[in-house]
Amino acid sequence: MVLYDGKSVQTIRVDTPSARYEVHAGSGLLASLAPRIERLAGRLPRRVFVLTSPEIWALWGEAFQKSFAEAPIALFLPAGEKHKTLRSAESLARQMIRAGADRGSLLIAFGGGIVGDVGGFLAAIFMRGIAYVQVPTTFLAQVDSSVGGKTGVNLPEGKNLVGSFHHPLAVFAEISVLNTLSGRELRAGLMESVKAGIIRDRALVRFMEERADEILDREPKALERVIAASIRMKAGVVGRDEREGGLRMILNFGHTLGHAVEQATRYKVLLHGEAVGWGMIAALYIARLRGTVSRAQAERLEELIHRYGPLPRFDVSAAKLVSATGADKKNVGGVRRFVLPIGIGDSGVVEDVTAGELREAAEYMLAEAAKAPDLTPKPAPKPEKQS
Amino acid sequence: MVLYDGKSVQTIRVDTPSARYEVHAGSGLLASLAPRIERLAGRLPRRVFVLTSPEIWALWGEAFQKSFAEAPIALFLPAGEKHKTLRSAESLARQMIRAGADRGSLLIAFGGGIVGDVGGFLAAIFMRGIAYVQVPTTFLAQVDSSVGGKTGVNLPEGKNLVGSFHHPLAVFAEISVLNTLSGRELRAGLMESVKAGIIRDRALVRFMEERADEILDREPKALERVIAASIRMKAGVVGRDEREGGLRMILNFGHTLGHAVEQATRYKVLLHGEAVGWGMIAALYIARLRGTVSRAQAERLEELIHRYGPLPRFDVSAAKLVSATGADKKNVGGVRRFVLPIGIGDSGVVEDVTAGELREAAEYMLAEAAKAPDLTPKPAPKPEKQS
Repeated sequence: MVLYDGKSVQTIRVDTPSARYEVHAGSGLLASLAPRIERLAGRLPRRVFVLTSPEIWALWGEAFQKSFAEAPIALFLPAGEKHKTLRSAESLARQMIRAGADRGSLLIAFGGGIVGDVGGFLAAIFMRGIAYVQVPTTFLAQVDSSVGGKTGVNLPEGKNLVGSFHHPLAVFAEISVLNTLSGRELRAGLMESVKAGIIRDRALVRFMEERADEILDREPKALERVIAASIRMKAGVVGRDEREGGLRMILNFGHTLGHAVEQATRYKVLLHGEAVGWGMIAALYIARLRGTVSRAQAERLEELIHRYGPLPRFDVSAAKLVSATGADKKNVGGVRRFVLPIGIGDSGVVEDVTAGELREAAEYMLAEAAKAPDLTPKPAPKPEKQS
Repeated sequence: MVLYDGKSVQTIRVDTPSARYEVHAGSGLLASLAPRIERLAGRLPRRVFVLTSPEIWALWGEAFQKSFAEAPIALFLPAGEKHKTLRSAESLARQMIRAGADRGSLLIAFGGGIVGDVGGFLAAIFMRGIAYVQVPTTFLAQVDSSVGGKTGVNLPEGKNLVGSFHHPLAVFAEISVLNTLSGRELRAGLMESVKAGIIRDRALVRFMEERADEILDREPKALERVIAASIRMKAGVVGRDEREGGLRMILNFGHTLGHAVEQATRYKVLLHGEAVGWGMIAALYIARLRGTVSRAQAERLEELIHRYGPLPRFDVSAAKLVSATGADKKNVGGVRRFVLPIGIGDSGVVEDVTAGELREAAEYMLAEAAKAPDLTPKPAPKPEKQS
């Protein structure tokens, strides 16, 4: 732990074959953004752009700009998945050109996962690649989408079908902006931390079990601990496997059936983290069947998932879910890879999960989901929404 | 020189920090494409796509498909710069998804510079990057745009403003397809070889002086020699400077004023290579002023450029050209970098070329251009066009 400006910040180093950078998580980062970037880049580029959403900018724009002598040029991406398109990227690139951007310009992505994904992709393709910095404002973006270099936009045929690997110069995860996040958004984001613990960090599992009240009450030190541990887990994995050849695959724990649930409910009922929560419950069922976790371990982990719920009710058929997993782009050459936890804090990838097992797991999950509270509709994009 | 299937092929190795691949130039490549790719990739992927233009496909599609047991899925990009857009890339990506493409799919770009640029960019962003192979069909694409990893599309604000660095698995430059290229296209492409000789290959300058008749008559061995030398020059430069930090800048010889001429004539009067020819004449003028080439050397090189002409007449003001260079995206942070030949076969970059020198050089070039033959309009996209 490092002290900076009297505030607490943890720094995690990401080290991949193609890039090396630091992720800072803590309080007081927003107030010191410009000098931090300046130190990183040698000097501030002549043109600094910030991509954000109107909602985040209304809440945090002033605090964001405070440390800059010359205000960055603000570009806006409206909230919502429907704006995560090549068309948005093109419109933003054109705005940058007209505002005098060149290859030496810097882009800061200041917002949730969608701003981060579009911003990273924009930086990746603008004049064949410019430098960028991530300043994620949702819990999910802080622990997940801002680390690993994956950027991209959607096609009508599916999510994230075009994109790039493009690493940021640095990531600044400011804890205090999480205060304007809705409780549901926070809990959904925490599912990725639960995932991080289950697949690779037994101590994080224990911390999230024991300190659930403080975490859900947004006690800054508790949040910082969870965020830093989640990022550290992901940085470790990405550092060993940048392009998802092997190890990185474990980050998809809970995502095979999670994505299927999102698709089958047309992204209208659950937040991403909530779908992953259900997907983990289904994956734990298969793990128990195969004996990679004991019955007691599976129950303990399932309880932890529900502790950060409630996960919302949804209703689709098991057959639809199984067929949706078949279309998952995570499959190369038709081989189905599936992540299973091994005890608590470890995990592995298997390639022989059958459609029968998937169906059985989906049925178990659906029976649980039928008992869950109805939270529909999914909250509309608001200041608190990942945007 | 390597013999393959009784045909002559030269192989040039490209070796950059991020990729290592081979460029093959010669005859008989098209007939052996599938086994060559198979050897390279271990096996042919389940889905092979070929991006091409309707015109190239009509002429060479049958020959292209011959070596494949299962015909690649053809995707079409209409000829012409106006289709080099993000919208085209998106439409092609959607076609690929609908045809079952996944991360293991392979894309072959079979056409001129535009097909190569769009195809490379499509491969760069499709599912965050898939493998691709370049099979360039114009002289310009063979010597220039298929080597170096630059891919991209245009914005209404300018050319190649969005793109990626994404290297192909291999490049196959088949000499025989040049037989359907128009004479004007061939000569314009040869300007890039003249450039290659001037900046870095004295022997190529001499060969192009002595063997101009055979080269312009498309004698295969002479063309192969010129193409291989040009690619070797570019591969050597790109291997030392992948991202245009320094040395790679010399490839822009003739391009500062060349681009200005293209812009000022709204891309309607000259082919790219012709504009570069004029740009080299202007740059030689500055080099002579500064003494980096002697008067005799400048005259000899100017004569060589005209030997591969005629360069077409055009008429714009010197002031317009000078102002167009100021908008050149090659300038980082406002510093104007300019490439000057040093004697014959060497070159360097200077950063202190003044607007006055540019203007004087532009005036010299404009006086020459006023005496040149009128070739307008620039040929419409046809089978022979870079498409």
